[in-house]
Amino acid sequence: MTDKKDRDPWLLTPGPLTTSPETKRAMLHDWGSRDKAFIDANARVRRRLVEIAGAAGTHVCVPLQGSGTFAVEATLGTMIPKAGKALALINGAYGQRMARILDYAGRAYAVLETPEDTPPGLDQLDAMLKADPRITHVAAVYCETTSGILNPIADIARIVAKHRRGLLIDAMSAFGALPLDARQVPFDAMMASSNKCFEGVPGMGFAVIRKAALENAKGNAHALSLDLYDQWQAMEKNGQWRFTPPTHVIFAFAAAIDQFDAEGGVAGRHKRYAANCKVLVDGMRAMGFETLLPDALQAPIIVTFRMPADPAFDFQTFYDALSRRGYVIYPGKLTVAPSFRIGCIGRLDAEVMKGALGAVRQAIKEMGVRTGAPVAA
Amino acid sequence: MTDKKDRDPWLLTPGPLTTSPETKRAMLHDWGSRDKAFIDANARVRRRLVEIAGAAGTHVCVPLQGSGTFAVEATLGTMIPKAGKALALINGAYGQRMARILDYAGRAYAVLETPEDTPPGLDQLDAMLKADPRITHVAAVYCETTSGILNPIADIARIVAKHRRGLLIDAMSAFGALPLDARQVPFDAMMASSNKCFEGVPGMGFAVIRKAALENAKGNAHALSLDLYDQWQAMEKNGQWRFTPPTHVIFAFAAAIDQFDAEGGVAGRHKRYAANCKVLVDGMRAMGFETLLPDALQAPIIVTFRMPADPAFDFQTFYDALSRRGYVIYPGKLTVAPSFRIGCIGRLDAEVMKGALGAVRQAIKEMGVRTGAPVAA
Repeated sequence: MTDKKDRDPWLLTPGPLTTSPETKRAMLHDWGSRDKAFIDANARVRRRLVEIAGAAGTHVCVPLQGSGTFAVEATLGTMIPKAGKALALINGAYGQRMARILDYAGRAYAVLETPEDTPPGLDQLDAMLKADPRITHVAAVYCETTSGILNPIADIARIVAKHRRGLLIDAMSAFGALPLDARQVPFDAMMASSNKCFEGVPGMGFAVIRKAALENAKGNAHALSLDLYDQWQAMEKNGQWRFTPPTHVIFAFAAAIDQFDAEGGVAGRHKRYAANCKVLVDGMRAMGFETLLPDALQAPIIVTFRMPADPAFDFQTFYDALSRRGYVIYPGKLTVAPSFRIGCIGRLDAEVMKGALGAVRQAIKEMGVRTGAPVAA
Repeated sequence: MTDKKDRDPWLLTPGPLTTSPETKRAMLHDWGSRDKAFIDANARVRRRLVEIAGAAGTHVCVPLQGSGTFAVEATLGTMIPKAGKALALINGAYGQRMARILDYAGRAYAVLETPEDTPPGLDQLDAMLKADPRITHVAAVYCETTSGILNPIADIARIVAKHRRGLLIDAMSAFGALPLDARQVPFDAMMASSNKCFEGVPGMGFAVIRKAALENAKGNAHALSLDLYDQWQAMEKNGQWRFTPPTHVIFAFAAAIDQFDAEGGVAGRHKRYAANCKVLVDGMRAMGFETLLPDALQAPIIVTFRMPADPAFDFQTFYDALSRRGYVIYPGKLTVAPSFRIGCIGRLDAEVMKGALGAVRQAIKEMGVRTGAPVAA
């Protein structure tokens, strides 16, 4: 497991991530997009995703070609009417991206922005919704991959429901590993992708959308390719995608969902990721590194570490030293503090995380770094 | 080769199509989207596509997540300014789809429409461009997959260039097998996908765009995900995609392009497809079937056959009988005549086409159909 020559590098990133051999081997076939085997697999994936979201009977799953961002953009454009108004809750790059999408789509929006290490204020959310009846939808990120922060999605949903607005949840790096059940957390739509906690390969996203809300969404979308109402209507008619589907990606996703079920669903996956996260954080802290977030705000998805203060520490050298040893980590994208990130998701277990810690130890030793401790905050 | 149990069905469709084992095996690894191996492979794919288009030095390749339609929509939205006007040349579903995209994007457009078996009138194109100076771009389909018709793209390009307008070519099912060289056929942009004549797996498209035109395209796009200017700018900066790339699809595409080069590039691929098409058409005609198009208009990509007149012929029964024997064909989508389609592209050779003809013979015999001859046109 530590000999890089024998294997691909471990991807300690928020995606593309390490997938299982079974998932990749599912791509060794070609399928017609109108043939029964494909239509059946596609239907099964859609049905399972709705069930996993606790949304059978109330919601439908609409898959979409492209990355997760395509699914987010498609959902915002399809669900928010041209005359609607969004309130975007922002504490990181993915919240910012939702605002950028709304600019492109020409939708009015307000913003409730907090720093990257701070969840949105619930009282402020309540007040903003009370003050502005024109707001039709709230767009929130469940786990903001920028920092790895866990936003209080259940509380947000409760307040949005109280004001009878629609909630659109970017659950990209959360769904599949963190609890999200439509019966407890009411939402109009939730967006995620094949390539995060379900451990499929990248190439498609999806939205789980409240059927009654989607039925009213005809004509909203700002792009044909991103029109989830049209995609849904076509798929309901004959089980097929409107435009060429990424067949291999979908069969890999179907295989990945089987493995997800075998691992015990959301509870099983959460357990493994939480163990990965604990091994990682404990081990890094033992070397002096500090996490950006307090443990109570840390999702077991990706961990942001503050940059060490030791002048011998150089991030690119560190990244390359880990990469040579077969561990790929992720640069930081944060404005609150210089930092880097290490992911806990994908087909990784505690042994891999221990291997990564060993590589970190060797890397900082090579650089002559005595401690990972950052500048005092 | 005729025992279905040993293999996937042959996909005689316009895509997803049959790919080689080497292409599929390229997906048995995981890569980070910011790591050198991926960035290098991506750069190589982009460079080769520009070279194959005879556009080195003048054009750039901008890849995009999603199906071919995503690339077409992104290119139309990015290249046609909000105050621009398109002339869409339509003789099939893909021309129609371009008009639908322009509706979503809110771009003004005129239409030059001909029946599905008829290329656009060149004199009429010339007259329309002369009469309407507001037209900034002409959008044309090279091989219209609806019927398989070869549109006279070189003549169209000459007329568009004479009037100094921009030409946007949907070369989806043509590029890689039919000649298209930017030095002979001037275009502002040409769109295709991984999954047609290059025989990659589906999941990404691309556009080859004249750099000087793309430089002026900032702020045009109607969707963030579909903004090729933004995608290009980001990729030029660090070689990375803006949003999670379909890494496995891209490595499969890279492998497929190596095989394309080994086969002798466009000339080699055209030769094999033309041979496939000849075997197919000759064999079907020997059974009484008739092609929709005269040979001079038939691209060696996909062939439309008129529905047999024999009352014993039932298309679904025919489709299923071929499918049981391991050959997947494609229903027709035409308005000019009841028909079905059989594709010539993908990792298929003359032996496969002969096998398909054998399956057709058995299928019509089972149904008690004496001849494939259609109602006299």
